[in-house]
Amino acid sequence: MPELRKDPLIGRWVIIATERAKRPVDFLAAHEEPSPETTCPFCQGREGETAAEIFAVRDGGSAANRPGWKVRVVPNIKPVLRVEGQLNRRAKGMYDLMDGIGAHEVIVETPEHVANAADLSVEQLHASFHAAMTRMADLEQDPRFRYVLWFKNYGATAGAGRIQHSRSQLIATPVTPLRVKEELLGTRRYFEDKERCLVCDLLDQERQAKTRVVIESSHLIALCPFASRFPFELWIVPKRHSCDFGKMQPAELADLAHVSKQVLSRLKSVLDDPPYNALLHTAPFRRPRGRSAKWKTIEDDYHWHIELIPRLTRVAGFEWGSGFYINPTPPEESAKYLREAVEETEAPVHVETK
Amino acid sequence: MPELRKDPLIGRWVIIATERAKRPVDFLAAHEEPSPETTCPFCQGREGETAAEIFAVRDGGSAANRPGWKVRVVPNIKPVLRVEGQLNRRAKGMYDLMDGIGAHEVIVETPEHVANAADLSVEQLHASFHAAMTRMADLEQDPRFRYVLWFKNYGATAGAGRIQHSRSQLIATPVTPLRVKEELLGTRRYFEDKERCLVCDLLDQERQAKTRVVIESSHLIALCPFASRFPFELWIVPKRHSCDFGKMQPAELADLAHVSKQVLSRLKSVLDDPPYNALLHTAPFRRPRGRSAKWKTIEDDYHWHIELIPRLTRVAGFEWGSGFYINPTPPEESAKYLREAVEETEAPVHVETK
Repeated sequence: MPELRKDPLIGRWVIIATERAKRPVDFLAAHEEPSPETTCPFCQGREGETAAEIFAVRDGGSAANRPGWKVRVVPNIKPVLRVEGQLNRRAKGMYDLMDGIGAHEVIVETPEHVANAADLSVEQLHASFHAAMTRMADLEQDPRFRYVLWFKNYGATAGAGRIQHSRSQLIATPVTPLRVKEELLGTRRYFEDKERCLVCDLLDQERQAKTRVVIESSHLIALCPFASRFPFELWIVPKRHSCDFGKMQPAELADLAHVSKQVLSRLKSVLDDPPYNALLHTAPFRRPRGRSAKWKTIEDDYHWHIELIPRLTRVAGFEWGSGFYINPTPPEESAKYLREAVEETEAPVHVETK
Repeated sequence: MPELRKDPLIGRWVIIATERAKRPVDFLAAHEEPSPETTCPFCQGREGETAAEIFAVRDGGSAANRPGWKVRVVPNIKPVLRVEGQLNRRAKGMYDLMDGIGAHEVIVETPEHVANAADLSVEQLHASFHAAMTRMADLEQDPRFRYVLWFKNYGATAGAGRIQHSRSQLIATPVTPLRVKEELLGTRRYFEDKERCLVCDLLDQERQAKTRVVIESSHLIALCPFASRFPFELWIVPKRHSCDFGKMQPAELADLAHVSKQVLSRLKSVLDDPPYNALLHTAPFRRPRGRSAKWKTIEDDYHWHIELIPRLTRVAGFEWGSGFYINPTPPEESAKYLREAVEETEAPVHVETK
């Protein structure tokens, strides 16, 4: 059973593998070869090579774990957290730990062997986000879980591993991750001061300034944030205030698929198919116990968004030590390149005229 | 002038390059070739290829910017922050920013072309740490600076760049970095509760448990922390309570050089010369203004330490999104490998018998 251990200095939780732990020799030969197409377990026709599906978007009448699907959700074959068991929260002297309980699922975003989500149709992206919403709603029913992180790794540098088949992942955790807590705290403080949502205010300012906005559609804004950590970092933010990705309305979901296609295509075109990570920040499932008075405003003060991070620069000692990032490309320039890339992409642009 | 921009959600500062910003094409050809030895600007005899030295440990009688040095400190030729000017703190609507003022220095740790600090003599390491202390004390005199981060990148994966010559770096910043603030906050809370230093308590527990201790010398403990984020992550912590690296006593400094040599040699031997980052966490120079009551105990509650991070695993979407790390090697196993490596290293072991 993996362990969750809490850093006593800053409260960061770390998942420690305790079985089949990696030894020094395992780190020596880290050269990864792309897997040949014939062995991809995520392609249509090889449903038997994954664990049984948890959810799928399928053509009418097709059977589970058989061809005929658009999007398929399966348990991760090497889960970082285990779904069976209780948390078993405990102390070890001054340290806090619990068992590594959670869920780890893979959303296979296409039956074809396509590597980059930028090359998927808007329809496939729509089905993928729908699958994520469905699975997150289901995982929320499990009282052991506090948060589900949706994320995507594309390209070896971004941690995608050997299999080049477009997919995203869900990890349900029994604690709210530190980065999410920091955002919850920052937005709560702002709300307590102004009784307005920080991100709503930020969107107002960005729409006026225009310099960092890449796309404004009916329901969403894609922008390069003012304090971008990385070149071409991009956030997709809903215009309607909402703390919860899972509460998206059908028109917003459809728009998210369109805007994602646009944004991913432009990143691919401008940066020549870069590796990237994408991740969702949304409100945690449950408010921490005993702090209800402080957290009651989460519906008002938090605002979900997706962060897209092309992996173009190395993170070195300075960034690790300081939490201070060095970004060699101002977000205004990144946004300008991404706005101008529109001519080169083929998909229709879905921009609100105003 | 680079800009420092503050992330409005969590208060993280980011350095944004505004001149000679990187364009998309700059990220396309990132293949790095090791520089041939003949072009290394840090080797003895090529002092003219760096900026004029700020400080050096020299043989008696040798002139500045000439051969005859053991360790030499020069300004970074591509500084991420500029030393000239005022901070010019200002708002841009709801955003906070200031000019990218700071200092960025390189500590060249040997006159010979040696890449890994593990291969330096204890004497060279001693002179390097002495140079760092001297420069940090000098930078503290500058009222614009709040913190100096000492760090070291070894190997291309760890961000060392093209030149394979052992060196560390100092970056003085006009704000206290977020990661340091988090530790200050965590240790302060603990002190307010118990009136004891968290790290002192942690060392007591580790010395009893022994499982995560790699070396205990007269003045220092090298250990793999309980909630290690990375395989073979290792901290060097002084046994005497002190918030300030710069206040090390001569015997502690000498011991640090010995223990560093041991630890770096063992990492090199166990992991076959891995890339790594090292970084120092020490108390900031000045307490944030207007919060003196809260910060008055910093001498009591903070405890400096060096973190060593071998770069063996990839950080992907999950880690970025959550601040939650997955460590495939329990620190107890990492510590065991590093303890047992002692037989293979040649330098004398400097362990207190107790």
